[in-house]
This record gives sequence, structure tokens and C-alpha cells, in this order.
Amino acid sequence: MLKTDEHSLALLCDFYELTMGRGYFNSNVRDKIAYFDVFFRRVPDGGGYAIAAGLEQIASYIEGLRFTEEDVQFLRGKKIFDDEFLEYLKNFKFTGDIWAVPEGTVIFPHEPIMTVRAPIIEAQLIETYVLLAINHQSLIATKASRMVRAAKGRPISEFGSRRAHGEDAAVYGARAAYIGGCAGTACTLSEKLYSVPAGGTMAHSWIQMFDTEYEAFETYCRLYPQSPTLLVDTYGVFSSGIPNAIKAVKNVLWPLGLKDCAIRIDSGDITYITRKARKILDEAGLENCKIVASNALDEYLISELLAEGAKVDAFGVGERLITAKSDSVFGGVYKLAAVEGPDGIITPKIKISENIEKITNPHFKKVYRLYGESGKAEADLICLHDEVVDPSKPLEIFDPEYTWKRRTIENFIARELLVPVFVKGKLVYEFPPLDLVRSRCAAEVGTMWEEVLRFENPHEYYVDLSQKLWDIKQEMLNAKNDGKK
Amino acid sequence: MLKTDEHSLALLCDFYELTMGRGYFNSNVRDKIAYFDVFFRRVPDGGGYAIAAGLEQIASYIEGLRFTEEDVQFLRGKKIFDDEFLEYLKNFKFTGDIWAVPEGTVIFPHEPIMTVRAPIIEAQLIETYVLLAINHQSLIATKASRMVRAAKGRPISEFGSRRAHGEDAAVYGARAAYIGGCAGTACTLSEKLYSVPAGGTMAHSWIQMFDTEYEAFETYCRLYPQSPTLLVDTYGVFSSGIPNAIKAVKNVLWPLGLKDCAIRIDSGDITYITRKARKILDEAGLENCKIVASNALDEYLISELLAEGAKVDAFGVGERLITAKSDSVFGGVYKLAAVEGPDGIITPKIKISENIEKITNPHFKKVYRLYGESGKAEADLICLHDEVVDPSKPLEIFDPEYTWKRRTIENFIARELLVPVFVKGKLVYEFPPLDLVRSRCAAEVGTMWEEVLRFENPHEYYVDLSQKLWDIKQEMLNAKNDGKK
Repeated sequence: MLKTDEHSLALLCDFYELTMGRGYFNSNVRDKIAYFDVFFRRVPDGGGYAIAAGLEQIASYIEGLRFTEEDVQFLRGKKIFDDEFLEYLKNFKFTGDIWAVPEGTVIFPHEPIMTVRAPIIEAQLIETYVLLAINHQSLIATKASRMVRAAKGRPISEFGSRRAHGEDAAVYGARAAYIGGCAGTACTLSEKLYSVPAGGTMAHSWIQMFDTEYEAFETYCRLYPQSPTLLVDTYGVFSSGIPNAIKAVKNVLWPLGLKDCAIRIDSGDITYITRKARKILDEAGLENCKIVASNALDEYLISELLAEGAKVDAFGVGERLITAKSDSVFGGVYKLAAVEGPDGIITPKIKISENIEKITNPHFKKVYRLYGESGKAEADLICLHDEVVDPSKPLEIFDPEYTWKRRTIENFIARELLVPVFVKGKLVYEFPPLDLVRSRCAAEVGTMWEEVLRFENPHEYYVDLSQKLWDIKQEMLNAKNDGKK
Repeated sequence: MLKTDEHSLALLCDFYELTMGRGYFNSNVRDKIAYFDVFFRRVPDGGGYAIAAGLEQIASYIEGLRFTEEDVQFLRGKKIFDDEFLEYLKNFKFTGDIWAVPEGTVIFPHEPIMTVRAPIIEAQLIETYVLLAINHQSLIATKASRMVRAAKGRPISEFGSRRAHGEDAAVYGARAAYIGGCAGTACTLSEKLYSVPAGGTMAHSWIQMFDTEYEAFETYCRLYPQSPTLLVDTYGVFSSGIPNAIKAVKNVLWPLGLKDCAIRIDSGDITYITRKARKILDEAGLENCKIVASNALDEYLISELLAEGAKVDAFGVGERLITAKSDSVFGGVYKLAAVEGPDGIITPKIKISENIEKITNPHFKKVYRLYGESGKAEADLICLHDEVVDPSKPLEIFDPEYTWKRRTIENFIARELLVPVFVKGKLVYEFPPLDLVRSRCAAEVGTMWEEVLRFENPHEYYVDLSQKLWDIKQEMLNAKNDGKK
């Protein structure tokens, strides 16, 4: 980790945030208030939904954001920043407002998951960190949610620290995986810092350090008689590992009246091995011995194993979760949506692109999630910030691209997704304990139709624009190119 | 970042390192010295070589490794560690020896890139961090080396902080990318901490904040007249961006006698756009205006663009480098190779597996790189720790699997790859400045045959075993299963 007394994380930003910052400072836009939206365009792995995570780290970053004397010295050495701007940085403090979806929220492409309203320089300087934290943790929480669903109720432990992309990737990755539904982690520090339950038992080296595999198991059971997990594939699962495990359990645990234990398989044909192992264990009277499988697993392999009838009680997943290997990028972006002058007038901004997908939704906005009578989420509706959805009246929603696709919903519940996090620079959001975030996330995933949750070719959840917002956007597109250039 | 005064990184380890640690502490293997090798089995992306990185972070981690009072309290709360062991942790200090390849070294599968010799508990406790740091930074350095080679001399800037897997992934990722050959980074903190040159100019928001694109460019050129890079795809590259850029350069830079500048293209058909842009710029007299391309690039896309005749002077690469998207896992492992008793006798250890690839090389070893008369690296030779290769005599090397494949090399230079890093717990290795690491890395890549450097289906570089080591390994395989069980 990089944070020490001597330096802050204020410089953990793309250098252009600083060149732009100094540029704004020395130009006529210096005092303008900017509205930036964080949103993403595509769910990783071709999935139908994502899980938001990382907000707590963003809040603590922004709360503590200061440029130290050393930071300013460093910037002075770059010889492109004037003294006045450096002085401004010395006194820098975030004074803006932030709305965001709580961690664990199910999120969809193109809707704001965070809106930052702040003087342009402040809003610009936090861009890199905000994206980094949301992109990383949402990526891992989303991947974890997929794996957990594939495991159909069997617990999944996150094991990937050693393949994580650095220290934070291990610790925050374990945190995000827990939000997404993992039962625990191997990363000890994640329990200390974030109460993610940490566990683990032995590596192959443990077994190799003893003269015999039996001695290794026997010693372990003696020291940890409460539900030890024995790794049985060091020398041969059936020729050595399982027989020695059974012997150790019977010799050490049974006399203590203890029955709970597990074996872990970390290589080979998991389906074949676990089915055979289950039989052997049961025949030996070890019905209480669980089988844990690990070895480069992900949602695809887990689904396959279970479809093939593998007898697995719990999974350990490492590299394919902690790096989100099959699709390692969560593409959250930070785009200007509006500018407010000293007169308080908000001017919407749009980014036009050849690529229709890349055109942004202008203006200061809010998002409603609409739940139907069944309790399932039916659509999200992006509105102007001052619009109010009245659930007592029927509401016509329409596809923002194919506007003839319309439907009217009635008897629905409308929930606002974005909640205040910072108000005038003050953190106002109270972060719930992580296990609550995790259970809320699971509950929210439960409000989604199965079609949206599907791994392959999911149904595209409706993210619609209100008529007012749609009209403004069309007007701006027709006027093209954001006015005069 | 997670390190603060209140907690150390000692708990950034898989929990099983601690359960095993306490287990060793309470067993008869407590005083044994273990030898662990770090090696990897497969080059990411099917490449022919990898670049080692991350050693400096490991050294500083190990040097500072202490369990704080708070760490010990936390572990006590887990209620499975006895007081004696917790007392041991309070006084923990690494006292072992470590040999490793210097950062920037070209490395190949199956050869030790680090060897740890330490009392078993110490050797076990550092496993997670050692792997995490080597796996992360070697992954990014290797990916960067591929991209840099694809760019054929054009500089590449690392831009990926916002898509990195957490804070360290951004900062250490930029560091590793620099080792692998990138020219610089957008990550400001990486310059402050590791002297990786940081740069950057403007985002689309800069342009959108001004009333017109021209005003945005003009303002920027006025503030940063030394080689500004103008982002020209906010409203339309040819209809607006390039004409406005030309106008701003001519109006602001030329009167100052300045000609150096650049435009950046971040979307669309890079080949088509850059070829057309080059013509327009040249016709306008802006021959000194460079063209920078970015937008989800990697070595494959860069090769393709250049093959198609794209006119690009420099590349910016983001998500596909900082997450190594096409193959986001570097699979370094930490395997027991030998155990030394109080009598000083070293007993080799082997891990046998159904999967031949997963069988380890036993014993305390060293590695020579053999360079032929042309100066090219011909093979690496893994030997026992006390073997000495004499380059004055012909040396027969052979494929460890297909042993009839033999060749004799003469007039070669033999260089030992592993250098002492820790001796009896003391850091003895002096880390060279990072630009030296980077230039040594480039020089070393230059000693590899083109066939090894190929992106697709590279020639497999020879990593051979000495006859003595091969004999010991065969003997152990024949005796099977590491002796009695």
C-alpha cells in the first residue's frame, strides 16, 4: 500500500486532471459548477446486470483529499503550474455535492450511478479516483454475483489474493466479492478492515513438510479439531489423500465426538473425483465430511460441474474472480452532463459521437426504479432532477431509441436510486455494515426477472428516459454539436 | 491505500499461512528451514517470454514486516491461535535468505525466479505477498513489453488508472509498464513515487466547458504553449476538431515561434482518420504536429493499425494494458523445493501431479543464462545450487522431457540469473533507478532471438536441467510420491 504519512493520495489522478485544473483556474470558466455523471455502457461478460461497489472508498478518499506540502513541491518541480494555482491546491477541499446508488445496488448501462456537482476544478480532480474505485469493485462484485448464482446456494470463498493486481486488488477485491455474495475470503486483512469472514486451512507445503501425509493430517486435526479441511491431492487423491484423511478424522476427531470436517480437491477432474470421493467418504461413515473444490473456477465451470453431477458442497475461487479474467474491465466513465453559472441556471451538455452508444444523456438527472405488482423490477426511468414520478397514476414509458415501443404501467412502486452522499462537501451518507450491504444486494438481485439474470443472452432490462429528458436530448441532437463552436 | 499508522500489512496474507504457521509452531517441523521457489508455468497471451517485476515492493514489504499489537489482537479474536504463537508473531522478523532475478529480467516458465530459504513459518508467512507482487507487476511488464514491440519505436503512454483494479494496480501498474518499455504514464503519483514520467493534457470535458471548441483549444495553447496535445474528437474530427486545432496553433503558438504540438484521436477508425488528418495537417504547414491515438488499444490492434498504414506518432493505452485484459492472470506459484534440518542436510522435495506440467523441480537450485557467440541467449540451465558451469569447456545440454534432444554449446557466456536480495534477514540488494531497470530490460529483450519474441506461436526457449538435477528428479519420480506416506 502506498499511503504513508509522507504523502497523500491526492496525486493518484491522471495528470490531465491537474493540467485542466490549472487551466480552468486561469480561465473564465473557473467559477462554474459542473455536473458529472458516472455511468457505464456495457455489462462485463455480456451479462444482463451489474452490482455497484466502491462507494465507501470513494467517500473516504474525498473526505481526506488534501494536497500535502510534498505534493505541491512535486508539482512545482514539473514547472508548468503557477504559484497561485499551487496555493489553491494547498487549501484544496472538496465542497461539492454527490449523489450515488448505495453499494450492492443492481445497476444497468447508461443510467447515472453517481452524479457529482461541484466547482469544475474540484469535480475534475476527483475523476480518476472515483472511476478507479467504482470500476474495480463493481467489476468484482458483478463477477462474484454471477459465480454465486452459478453455485446455487453452495458457499463460495474468494481465494485470489496471490493473483490480484496488487495489494488493494486483494483487499478491496475480497470486499467487493463479499458484497456480490461470496461467503468469505482467504484474505486475512479484509476481515480485519471490512469484516469479510476470513478462513483457510492448509497448502500443499503443509503436507510436504511432514514425513508422511498422514502425519500432516493427524497433526492438523489435533491442532484444529473444529471442522478441519484437509487438502487431499498432494500425492494422489484416492491412493493416499482420502484414505489418510479418513484415518486422521477417525483417529483424532471421532474420539472427541467431532464429526464436522472437509476435504479439498485442487486439481484433476472435479466431477469424477468428487463423485467417487463422496461415495468413499459415505461408505467410511464420513457423511459429515464436506467436499470443497477449487482450481481456476468461474461461473461457467461451476455451472458445468453441477450439471454433470459433481458432489461439491463449497467452492473456492481464485484468479478468475479476483481478476475477473473472462472480462477484466468495467468501463465506467465520468461525463459532463451540465454546467451551472453563478446565476444558478443549469445548461445541459451532451457529448455527441459517431457511435450512437457513446452519446451521453444530458442534464442534471435522477433515476427511479419501477417495481410492478409482482415485486419484480420492471424498468428504470431516468428523469430530470426536478421531475417527480407519481405512482398513483398510470405511467407511460417508452424505449428511447425505438420510441414506438411503449407501455403503460400501473400500480407500481417507484424508488429513487441515487441518494445524497456529500452535501456541500460534507459526508452525509451513513455506510451500513458490509453484511447488510451484502444481504441487500442479494435481495435486490432477487427482484430481477430470471431473464435479466441469465448468463448468456440475457433480456435487456429497460432503462428509459422521461419524456422531458428525451425532448431535451433530441433538441440538442437536432441542434447538433452542442451549439456554436 | 490501506496502510496507515494503525495497521500493518502483515495480515495481507491468506489465512492459511497463519493456520499453517501456528501448526508448524506446535509441531516437530517448527525448526526446519524450508526452500521455496517462485516460478510460473505459462506465459500470458501464449507469448514466448515474460518480464520479471515487483521485487522492490517485496523487499520493502519483507523489511518492514511486523505484526502490530492490533494485528495480534485481531488474531486473538479468531480464537484458534494460542498465546505462545501470538507472542511469537509479536516478535516476528524475517531472518531468511532470498535470491531473485533483478526486475526487468526476461524470464521463462518452470525456472526459479526467486528462491526463499527461511525457517518454515517465516517462509510460509510471506508467500501471499510475494506472489501477489510478482504476479501483478510481471503481468503488466510483460504486457507492456509486447505492446511496445508492436509499436515499433513509437512511444506508448500508459493511461489506464481509471480502469485499474484499485489504487496499487494504478500506481504499481504504471511502474511495471515503464519497466516493460512504456515511455510514461498518466498516473501522477507514479512519477512522484517511482519517477515514471507522468503527462497528460485534456479530456473531452475541457472542451465542453468552454463556449466553443476553438476557445478551449486557444485557452489551452495560451496556458501550455510547450507542445500542447489537443483532443480533436469531441464534436467531429474533420468538421470541427482539426480545423480548430490548426487555427489555435497558428494563432497562439506560431507567433511565439513554437511549432511542436499534437492532436489526439480517441475514437473512430484510427487508420482512416490519422491518414486523412496527417494530410490536412501537412497541407496546413503543421508538419511538426504529432498524432496520438488512443481507445482500447493493445498489441494486436497496434500491429494492425501500423500494418494498415495508420499515421500515428505515439499511442496511449489504457484498460487493455493496466488490466492485461486479453489474459489477466500471471500464474506465479510458490512451491516447496527442499527442507534443511538442524544438521544442515538439505532434503529435496517434489510435488507430483497427474498433470506432468505441474510436477515441480526439486532441490536448492540456481539458474544460468547461456549466451552464444552472437550475443543471443541460447538457453537457460537450472542447476543444483553448488554446481558451477565452466564456459571454457563445451557444455552438452538436453531437453528434460525428450532427453534425446541434445546439443553441445561452446564459446558461450554463462550468467547467473538469481542474485542475493536478503542474507540472514538483511536486505543486501541495491535497487537500481527505474530508468536503468527499464533500459536493461530493453537490452535483455534484445538478446532474445526474434522467434522467441513472436506474438503468435513463438519458439519455445530452452529451459534445461543440469544432468545432476535431472538425475535427482528422476530418482524422486521413480521412488514416487516423495517417499513414505
